[in-house]
Amino acid sequence: MNRSSSSHSVRRQQLNRSSSFAPSLRRRNTSVSIPPDPEDDPAVAQAVNAQQVIQEEIAEIKRYEDFTTIDWVQDAAREQLRRKARRKERAGFWARNGRLGWRGRIAEAYDAGQAWIVVTLVGAAIGLNAAFLNIVTEWLSDIKLGHCSTAFYLNENFCCWGAESGCAEWKRWSGFWPLNYLLYILFAALFSLTAATLVKFLAPYAAGSGISEIKCIIAGFVMKGFLGSWTLVIKSIGLPLAIASGLSIGKEGPSVHYAVCTGNVISRFFDKYRRNAAKTREILSASAAAGVGVAFGSPIGGVLFSLEEMSNYFPLKTMWRSYFCALVATAVLAAMNPFRTGQLVMFQVKYDRSWHFFEILFYLIIGAFGGLYGAFVIKWNLRVQAFRKKYLVKYPIVESVTLAVATAIICYPNMFLRIDMTESMEILFLECEGGHDYDELCDSQNRVRMIFSLAIATIIRTVLVIISYGCKVPAGIFVPSMAIGASFGRMVGIFVQHLHESFPDSRFFSACEPDVPCITPGTYAFLGAAAALSGIMHITVSVVVIMFELTGALTYILPTMIVVGITKAVSERFGHGGIADRAIWFNGYPFLDNKEEHTFGVPVSQVMAQHIVSLPATGLELRALERIINENQFQGYPIVEDATTKTLLGYIGRTELKYAIDRAKKDQMAPGHAKCYFSASGTGGDPRTPSSTMPAVTFDTMSATSAQLRIDFSKFIDPTPLTVHPRLPLETVMELFKKMGPRVVLIEYRGRLTGLVTVKDCLKYQFKVEAHDNPQQAASDHRSEQIWGVMKTAGGWVDDRLNVLRRKIGLGGQDIRLPSPTRHSNERLRDGEWGNTAEDGEDGDALELELEDRGRSEAR
Amino acid sequence: MNRSSSSHSVRRQQLNRSSSFAPSLRRRNTSVSIPPDPEDDPAVAQAVNAQQVIQEEIAEIKRYEDFTTIDWVQDAAREQLRRKARRKERAGFWARNGRLGWRGRIAEAYDAGQAWIVVTLVGAAIGLNAAFLNIVTEWLSDIKLGHCSTAFYLNENFCCWGAESGCAEWKRWSGFWPLNYLLYILFAALFSLTAATLVKFLAPYAAGSGISEIKCIIAGFVMKGFLGSWTLVIKSIGLPLAIASGLSIGKEGPSVHYAVCTGNVISRFFDKYRRNAAKTREILSASAAAGVGVAFGSPIGGVLFSLEEMSNYFPLKTMWRSYFCALVATAVLAAMNPFRTGQLVMFQVKYDRSWHFFEILFYLIIGAFGGLYGAFVIKWNLRVQAFRKKYLVKYPIVESVTLAVATAIICYPNMFLRIDMTESMEILFLECEGGHDYDELCDSQNRVRMIFSLAIATIIRTVLVIISYGCKVPAGIFVPSMAIGASFGRMVGIFVQHLHESFPDSRFFSACEPDVPCITPGTYAFLGAAAALSGIMHITVSVVVIMFELTGALTYILPTMIVVGITKAVSERFGHGGIADRAIWFNGYPFLDNKEEHTFGVPVSQVMAQHIVSLPATGLELRALERIINENQFQGYPIVEDATTKTLLGYIGRTELKYAIDRAKKDQMAPGHAKCYFSASGTGGDPRTPSSTMPAVTFDTMSATSAQLRIDFSKFIDPTPLTVHPRLPLETVMELFKKMGPRVVLIEYRGRLTGLVTVKDCLKYQFKVEAHDNPQQAASDHRSEQIWGVMKTAGGWVDDRLNVLRRKIGLGGQDIRLPSPTRHSNERLRDGEWGNTAEDGEDGDALELELEDRGRSEAR
Repeated sequence: MNRSSSSHSVRRQQLNRSSSFAPSLRRRNTSVSIPPDPEDDPAVAQAVNAQQVIQEEIAEIKRYEDFTTIDWVQDAAREQLRRKARRKERAGFWARNGRLGWRGRIAEAYDAGQAWIVVTLVGAAIGLNAAFLNIVTEWLSDIKLGHCSTAFYLNENFCCWGAESGCAEWKRWSGFWPLNYLLYILFAALFSLTAATLVKFLAPYAAGSGISEIKCIIAGFVMKGFLGSWTLVIKSIGLPLAIASGLSIGKEGPSVHYAVCTGNVISRFFDKYRRNAAKTREILSASAAAGVGVAFGSPIGGVLFSLEEMSNYFPLKTMWRSYFCALVATAVLAAMNPFRTGQLVMFQVKYDRSWHFFEILFYLIIGAFGGLYGAFVIKWNLRVQAFRKKYLVKYPIVESVTLAVATAIICYPNMFLRIDMTESMEILFLECEGGHDYDELCDSQNRVRMIFSLAIATIIRTVLVIISYGCKVPAGIFVPSMAIGASFGRMVGIFVQHLHESFPDSRFFSACEPDVPCITPGTYAFLGAAAALSGIMHITVSVVVIMFELTGALTYILPTMIVVGITKAVSERFGHGGIADRAIWFNGYPFLDNKEEHTFGVPVSQVMAQHIVSLPATGLELRALERIINENQFQGYPIVEDATTKTLLGYIGRTELKYAIDRAKKDQMAPGHAKCYFSASGTGGDPRTPSSTMPAVTFDTMSATSAQLRIDFSKFIDPTPLTVHPRLPLETVMELFKKMGPRVVLIEYRGRLTGLVTVKDCLKYQFKVEAHDNPQQAASDHRSEQIWGVMKTAGGWVDDRLNVLRRKIGLGGQDIRLPSPTRHSNERLRDGEWGNTAEDGEDGDALELELEDRGRSEAR
Repeated sequence: MNRSSSSHSVRRQQLNRSSSFAPSLRRRNTSVSIPPDPEDDPAVAQAVNAQQVIQEEIAEIKRYEDFTTIDWVQDAAREQLRRKARRKERAGFWARNGRLGWRGRIAEAYDAGQAWIVVTLVGAAIGLNAAFLNIVTEWLSDIKLGHCSTAFYLNENFCCWGAESGCAEWKRWSGFWPLNYLLYILFAALFSLTAATLVKFLAPYAAGSGISEIKCIIAGFVMKGFLGSWTLVIKSIGLPLAIASGLSIGKEGPSVHYAVCTGNVISRFFDKYRRNAAKTREILSASAAAGVGVAFGSPIGGVLFSLEEMSNYFPLKTMWRSYFCALVATAVLAAMNPFRTGQLVMFQVKYDRSWHFFEILFYLIIGAFGGLYGAFVIKWNLRVQAFRKKYLVKYPIVESVTLAVATAIICYPNMFLRIDMTESMEILFLECEGGHDYDELCDSQNRVRMIFSLAIATIIRTVLVIISYGCKVPAGIFVPSMAIGASFGRMVGIFVQHLHESFPDSRFFSACEPDVPCITPGTYAFLGAAAALSGIMHITVSVVVIMFELTGALTYILPTMIVVGITKAVSERFGHGGIADRAIWFNGYPFLDNKEEHTFGVPVSQVMAQHIVSLPATGLELRALERIINENQFQGYPIVEDATTKTLLGYIGRTELKYAIDRAKKDQMAPGHAKCYFSASGTGGDPRTPSSTMPAVTFDTMSATSAQLRIDFSKFIDPTPLTVHPRLPLETVMELFKKMGPRVVLIEYRGRLTGLVTVKDCLKYQFKVEAHDNPQQAASDHRSEQIWGVMKTAGGWVDDRLNVLRRKIGLGGQDIRLPSPTRHSNERLRDGEWGNTAEDGEDGDALELELEDRGRSEAR
């Protein structure tokens, strides 16, 4: 090994010599192909290993820094380093042992296949969990109505296995319907109470859908505990409870959340992912795909959803991982076969008739409805969220229970709201032919009543979704939106059918054959569901694929595409992104949306922070350094040659710096007056021939000088931070952030540091421009105040009555309105996080302030 | 307007003053939201307009520079500038006129909607063209067998409209079968002759599938004429001829090509796209989606194909455009309804039975076959390509005709090869139940014969695909691959069926119900087609979606995913990318594959060109400058302060420089001793506060100094080229190229220029490393020489016989073997292009040389 390294260095010298004469292109092509490596020396190799250990320790620390972002560029560089080291190790092994032994081979295969092992495990776990959730949800939904007398743990379907409709074993709770109804409401209240309590005390992050947060996490944001095992457990338990409580919420968003939690938890057990945050994001993307895949029984739709909605940047490798993960998850779910139907297709439909071109007119209406529905719900849901954050944040449990009870009471009178949302969709999708008829839906006598009933259902469900989505139980918005779309679509369909039957000879309907049914209202419901889903999430291709995988109605691919296209166009006109994007914006997460395009027309120098704390490369005393890092909370510091020239030498992260200082103090007993050195080791050489003097890796090899009065930080600095010219357009810098993903970009002008820019600087500027372009009155405050007044009065009244009741029946009872005295730490964080933005969801300045506040602790 | 600009500048001064005191973050948040703009001055605005005109002229020149790459970063910056100017213009209009008139509104809507107009037009044109092609192809295929006596322009189907199988109006050419067979072969020869002649003399770029070239073009490579209108016309005419000639080629690849040509040709008529090469790429991606969409009748599959295979970087906006374009194209095709079936689904199948878990074992075999098939065909097809380039490049026509005749002769004896590939797939996909039975395929007596026949078909078709794909007629590889996969799959299916019927009581088949058919061989054919398609193209998700849109067999989604997954895994083990990627590699196009991940572990300084020609910012005489640009062919020159310090100031492209020199000579009669100035206008200011002294745009505003002896080039330079540190890992720089897409990255060390790197430098290094890692013997040369000898002898013999024949029948005849004396310019270019790599397709060094050669004319 030594010999080879010396021959290498000789060759390298020859190389360098020849390089001064021959033209460069020629030279490089005729010379030796593989560049020699300065690290073939065993001592250096050992130093590299030590360096790796240090980096792993730092990576471990960084994993627990909350509300920071990953530096993708550094992370990738670290991974490259690791791979190179591994390759060298292997080559050394080969050189020593001649050929790989079986152990070596297994180790190698394990390393190469780790990603596949993880993806398989994650997929299988997600599939199992989905099967479990499906079974539990069904049982809980049925237990509200009755119980199985042979075995209490069976739901109606399994209790009466084989029987067509009901059986003697399945008993309703009583024969008296008002009591049944009361029990139904009580069960709803109990379920929502349990779910909300679990969420509140054990895993506050398990509330809501989680899609917007996961988007940020996949883009590199760190939220400690959001994907933890507690969140996973509570989300898995709370989700069936929340759905069974009858709230207008869906299971798809939470499915994504628990799937991603699964991915995160499992990948932690593997070296490769424990160390590398960027790699872990690949697994998270794949898990998200599997989550949607099992929720809808739509693996390809899941992959596309992950691509279109979840992932900031989606390399093809991730696509392939997602594909595999979704495949494993759905295969496991299919093998478990929780409903014993043997089908992945949720709503099998068979549309006998094809569509006619004249129907496109009505498809346009449905498409437009989808877009308007999305814009409306997003706008008002954000208002409700703002209200919730301002007033209701202390009463999550009472809010959920109230909502569940109110939903149960309101929905009962309407035939389409009474039943489960999935079931109602199934009914609405069906053709009228073939003997299925729910409550005379197909009866031509009842057309007007049906249209009226469906209109009511559409409106009530929309209001319920607006107020329910975001309450503190696991809750998604996919299925409710689809149910709303389906009821609207069926309404249009029945109307068109009525029109056709009233004017069968009209020129407009000339494409219809005479005397046979021409319009299939079920297809309108199907298209309505697609439109509403697309309208609320602002996704297109995934919706089309999900709808097909849900139903198998392939002949309707063009109508579906047309409807979704119209929805998308309308959404873009009236909205500013799907509900997940708006929630990100609303919560002020540092997420650069890659769907938006901005034209600022300013250079990055307009946006950068100019007065930044930089560290001189030499001569800084340790105590001065400590003072600097204690005075501010910046996430890193540029290294400059000295304070006057400001020649940029590198960048050191706060974490690395703190770690290095702690280490120096511990290992070397460094005193306060010790001098700190940050210069990279290669600076002595001629800067014009850096290839010969600079080692190949990002971090320098450990230098052995550890004199008492001299601390060498050089191995902790990043000598090659991304730098740009101050006049580079801001848009290009934002592209850099989006596509390359650095934590910080330094602004360098002729070798000197002139500024520093982070994603947050860009976002702040963007908010300012948006606020300037669309000045919005912060007016709704007064109205919220009034609503809160009414609610407080009502709440006080209910409380009084309850207290009276309690005293009467002599029960202490649980005072559900009391804010919990001991709060989970995450809850605290989260309140701090969200509390600031509560004033007005529509105002850019509030967000900016919020960012500013958080900026203090993490700006750079 | 003047008033507002002066108030702006006052505000700006205040801003600058305050900035020196307050901490920067605070300051920027409390100050005015929108930064003032130095270009509100009318004089400056005029200069900006002049600047824009210049840029448009340069853009026009650049469009015609062959074999160069686009600079995406500059292109984006230019687009930003344009938008900003437009916004300002509009704002000015508002300020003047109070409100927009209807004309203004229309102009604005037109500008905003241009993209949609283009996409709609392109989609409609592609749909129409596809309908036309379908009809012509059918007619040509049928005319080989007979003709319609009522109207010669009708194909058999339309001639006998309504009749079940054949009719009296449709007449075979004669009653004597050997004559029919001879006519069949003659027609095949005639069609291939016509197609090859058209391609050779009118549009050489219309040969082959074009997918790999389009990949490069979408990634930013410029190939003049590849997407031109002549290519479009010839490809559209040649494709039906080539397919009707019976060669083992498909229409899907060429469909993508003509679709992308359509997109390119139509977008040229619109301002926005004529000016901006990067924007045009969005349209090209969308067109590619539409191309696949119409070829397969699979719009979503097309979008995914464009995403997975065609596009280097696929922003969501492009996805949405592709979606829309594919939708319009398929809707138009459906409205045209060329087959009068009213169906987009090509092979409607209805599989009654679901699959059983034990079948997964056989799915594994099919999946493995797909992967092996892909690896095998890619490897040997590349060898054939190398052979073709070396020996056959002068005889494209004779090659195509020979292949067509040979195909016709060989395929006739086999029942599955005899019929059209699409038709044979349709037959193979079908279930046995339901009365369809082609030639006793389902007959249980014939199992062994069928298996044998299918095996023969698989092998022969594979060989034909290997030698046919790449011959100089429009030719794709999708459908032939699928046909091969289908025949293999059906073979496996029949075998499994036989197995089941032989051992019906085996434990293995316990999932089957007794006494009913259990195995559906058609589904195996379906899965085989998916596997082969995935194996040859190395795509996954798109294959699954395309298969569903082709057949509607949604219950088989999990098996399809499993098979495609296995195929992908096997392909990755044995191959290095799909056939398109390998062709790119083989042809040495400058394309950084974003599917591959490399670990070089070297800094960019190892790869960069160090000895580069840079221009000093001041003092260079015009004649010296002209000498420099005449001495070399570099695509651009960095600007440095002076030759000794080498402080980097900017970068100027060769095109811009030449344009500026021409202009200076023409407008100003600049003499040879005039001094050239390249410095940006803002250099006088304090570099630490660049925001106040530097204007907002990339290019400087035109300065009015036009003294006789002083030429100001400052407005042509790019003052903010992307720069990186010499020690930055090469992988990061490659990521920069892939994701940001600059033409060149400058290496800057402490403000000094130390090197320059282009995509080609990276690729050259990559080839070197690969060649070093996998040293391959360049051995196959001898064998090709032998094969060529045999072919020459055979060719000579045929020629002699033909000459004898000609002399006998007294015809001059056309000497088909004569190379054409006048060649189209593209042909010349292309031969030059391809000729160099002919030695050995497997050798990295040959490619490198090739790149090197081209490098001379475009390296930087």
